[in-house]
Amino acid sequence: MTAFDDLMAFQRETSALGEIAGRLGWDQETVMPRGAAPQRAEEMAAIEAVLHARRSDPRVAGWLDQADPQDQVGQAQLREIRRSYERTVKVPADLATAIARVTSAAQGIWAQARADEDVTAFLPVLDEVVALKREEGAALAQGGDVYDAMVEDYEPYTTGVQIAEIFDEMRPRLVALRAAVLDKPAPDGLTGKFDELAQIGLSQKLAIAFGYDLNTGRIDKAVHPFSSGSGLDVRITTRTSETDPFNCFYSTIHEVGHAAYEQGIDAAYALTPLGRGVSMGVHESQSRIYENQLGRSRAFTGWLYGQMKDAFGDFGIANEDAFYATVNGVHNGYIRTEADEVQYNLHIMLRFDLERALMAGDLQVNDLEAAWNDRFNADFGYAVDKPSNGCLQDVHWSVGLFGYFPTYSLGNVYAGCLYQALRAAVPDLDSQLAGGDTSGATAWLRENVQQHGGLYAPRETIQRASGMEPGPEPLLGYLEQKFGGLYGL
Amino acid sequence: MTAFDDLMAFQRETSALGEIAGRLGWDQETVMPRGAAPQRAEEMAAIEAVLHARRSDPRVAGWLDQADPQDQVGQAQLREIRRSYERTVKVPADLATAIARVTSAAQGIWAQARADEDVTAFLPVLDEVVALKREEGAALAQGGDVYDAMVEDYEPYTTGVQIAEIFDEMRPRLVALRAAVLDKPAPDGLTGKFDELAQIGLSQKLAIAFGYDLNTGRIDKAVHPFSSGSGLDVRITTRTSETDPFNCFYSTIHEVGHAAYEQGIDAAYALTPLGRGVSMGVHESQSRIYENQLGRSRAFTGWLYGQMKDAFGDFGIANEDAFYATVNGVHNGYIRTEADEVQYNLHIMLRFDLERALMAGDLQVNDLEAAWNDRFNADFGYAVDKPSNGCLQDVHWSVGLFGYFPTYSLGNVYAGCLYQALRAAVPDLDSQLAGGDTSGATAWLRENVQQHGGLYAPRETIQRASGMEPGPEPLLGYLEQKFGGLYGL
Repeated sequence: MTAFDDLMAFQRETSALGEIAGRLGWDQETVMPRGAAPQRAEEMAAIEAVLHARRSDPRVAGWLDQADPQDQVGQAQLREIRRSYERTVKVPADLATAIARVTSAAQGIWAQARADEDVTAFLPVLDEVVALKREEGAALAQGGDVYDAMVEDYEPYTTGVQIAEIFDEMRPRLVALRAAVLDKPAPDGLTGKFDELAQIGLSQKLAIAFGYDLNTGRIDKAVHPFSSGSGLDVRITTRTSETDPFNCFYSTIHEVGHAAYEQGIDAAYALTPLGRGVSMGVHESQSRIYENQLGRSRAFTGWLYGQMKDAFGDFGIANEDAFYATVNGVHNGYIRTEADEVQYNLHIMLRFDLERALMAGDLQVNDLEAAWNDRFNADFGYAVDKPSNGCLQDVHWSVGLFGYFPTYSLGNVYAGCLYQALRAAVPDLDSQLAGGDTSGATAWLRENVQQHGGLYAPRETIQRASGMEPGPEPLLGYLEQKFGGLYGL
Repeated sequence: MTAFDDLMAFQRETSALGEIAGRLGWDQETVMPRGAAPQRAEEMAAIEAVLHARRSDPRVAGWLDQADPQDQVGQAQLREIRRSYERTVKVPADLATAIARVTSAAQGIWAQARADEDVTAFLPVLDEVVALKREEGAALAQGGDVYDAMVEDYEPYTTGVQIAEIFDEMRPRLVALRAAVLDKPAPDGLTGKFDELAQIGLSQKLAIAFGYDLNTGRIDKAVHPFSSGSGLDVRITTRTSETDPFNCFYSTIHEVGHAAYEQGIDAAYALTPLGRGVSMGVHESQSRIYENQLGRSRAFTGWLYGQMKDAFGDFGIANEDAFYATVNGVHNGYIRTEADEVQYNLHIMLRFDLERALMAGDLQVNDLEAAWNDRFNADFGYAVDKPSNGCLQDVHWSVGLFGYFPTYSLGNVYAGCLYQALRAAVPDLDSQLAGGDTSGATAWLRENVQQHGGLYAPRETIQRASGMEPGPEPLLGYLEQKFGGLYGL
């Protein structure tokens, strides 16, 4: 056994324990008895303590010093293990404990403040969270940029400056596109009620159509749709609304995108650092391209229209073109998670700029609400009416997730690049999708993106797959063309 | 922090990790995708390795040396932690690994041999298992009785000699009762089909009727019914058969007995060694008294008869008395898990005598089938027709569970003692049960047995609750009276 072999054997057990922690999270959101919550908190803390001890185990440092793999895969494994180890040991244990304690309390305070529409009730604990996260960021950055150090947790090898460059290019064109679209008449919305069991049935059909392997996965209902797990056990959840079946269908397709990425990774990387999606942004590129570029395309919605008529009978939409317009309707709204393709990234850029300023010390927590409302008005053209529609709408900051938001839009940007390359590689894509056949698209994504797992850095992953330096132009072109056509701009 | 405090804090995390391992087992039997099995094996191995390392952690020895709690509960905690620690460190790591490896393979070989009715295909690996378990038993016994050391894992503070004394008293009376009953005409069996969704509905009603708290539990379907978890997360499973709803109902009540024990333990013991049922025998006493003495009583079956008529309409049984006879029908059969109250313990005693002889070296694996068949013929009066109805029917020995079988019958013996005391304590028990009200019985069991968890040793638990030295007389008297009445002996 070489040092590298020892390290990988140790790492394999750590990955297996990490999978267990993930499974507990799935259990908690789907099947756990309500009254089990206090005990579950202790169980999660116990396994997290085990994982933390392993990630910072002094033996890892020794193995890292001695290991010298000669092949590309081994070197990539070493790179990711080193990154995780160095990250873990840089943060003092008492600071990590303080963050865990304060964010746990802050989440409950946030939920109550949102219910009460009371920003001031949330600000003191948010101030604590921000202070602790800045301290953590400083420990991680070691003189470098604090916010960059945080982004590193979700989007490795990517900086705030890089993200800002991309976002600065996108914002004016998206603001203009949004204004032009909303100047036009809105398409019809759905009316009536849609049987929820039939929604579940059709969402399972959609999952299979997009290549989700139910032999190593399952679909359950949960309050918030999510995907969890890797390797041979990748589960998704969805939800139903009697009046809005699109919520169920597109949540399912989105989560199938995440799950297909995990299921598509080379089996040789299972239970290693390379055996998971390489970053949140690349993960989101998969969920978004499945959901939007493929799932909300004219071709695929034509097929879905027929499926919905089979499942629900006549539901008041006259034909495929009208259905395509309904699926892609753009409407005013305050809530990020309900936003359409045109407006979604504007919600993200707002948060990115604010959280980056918070971390830099350029924005104080007390000024957050005003800054949010000003920016919202500037981009969307109307005022935030209440905090739950404004700066209290998302859980992220309460639980210390700074640096996470921009990965959603990076995912869209990456999806734009991939989609451009995919269209060139699969010329008859539309005719396939019109028959409900995604296999040409999903096979290309598996071959060019998914199979590699963590082998390449995130931007390199997209660059290799799409054959271009990742940038916003393909996404912006796609959006302007799609919504220009839909709204007759 | 005293040494005792440190020990308990460490132990609490270990217990939380043990709960996680248990939850993985639940997941595997209920919701896990089929294709996840190989990955799950690695996950289980990883968490078991963590648990093993904690159970034999050298710091535990130090804390055990220094801890000196003055109260009864603290002393009981120390007793149980010491027992677990000493047990763990006595078995050499390479022996434990060899047992895990061989039993894992043996289970598959057993399943195939049973399917093929081929005893000789199973004997070589069983021989390996027996040799390894004898080696383990010798390491544990350190000069004492090997079989006693194994029983200790499932029924602490109880010896093979004690069990043999009880069983020797039971066997002739049960053989005689069985022969007398089977000399009489059998009652009608169930005919027709019973909607499986309606079975699940009624089984949930039965679970609630027996006091199962669904706020900290849940019911799922699984191939083999089981109960799992402790504290605030105690889950059960059941199964359905279109032609045999009793299988569903009495499996449910049985597992509710196990689950109610765990749910009934003093919350102050949660995530400590006292926070679980004290032994397999005491556990089984709860499942058996719920299932048999209460659930199959004339009073309760009268109520169940009405419930089944509500759920299924007329199902061909004329009245409550006939239904009571049907529920308690005694029929010839080879299979332990399908046996009735009269015959069940005969199946156990057979296995107890054979496995004790195997461990003592008085019986060789090659002679096992003949010994089984001779003994079966002696007690049941007819010959075993094929190995799957004989020595290949149970999984236990293939996975190294020696010393486990007798706890099933100890559970029945303990249930007999408890039932006698319960009847004296709750004089109107029958009228309560006739109305579907088990609360008098379950409250008495919670107060006198369940709440104590691991505070007292198993026999002491039963002795304190029943006010008698545990022995077989109450069970035998109950069986002779019940089945004497049913069969007009």
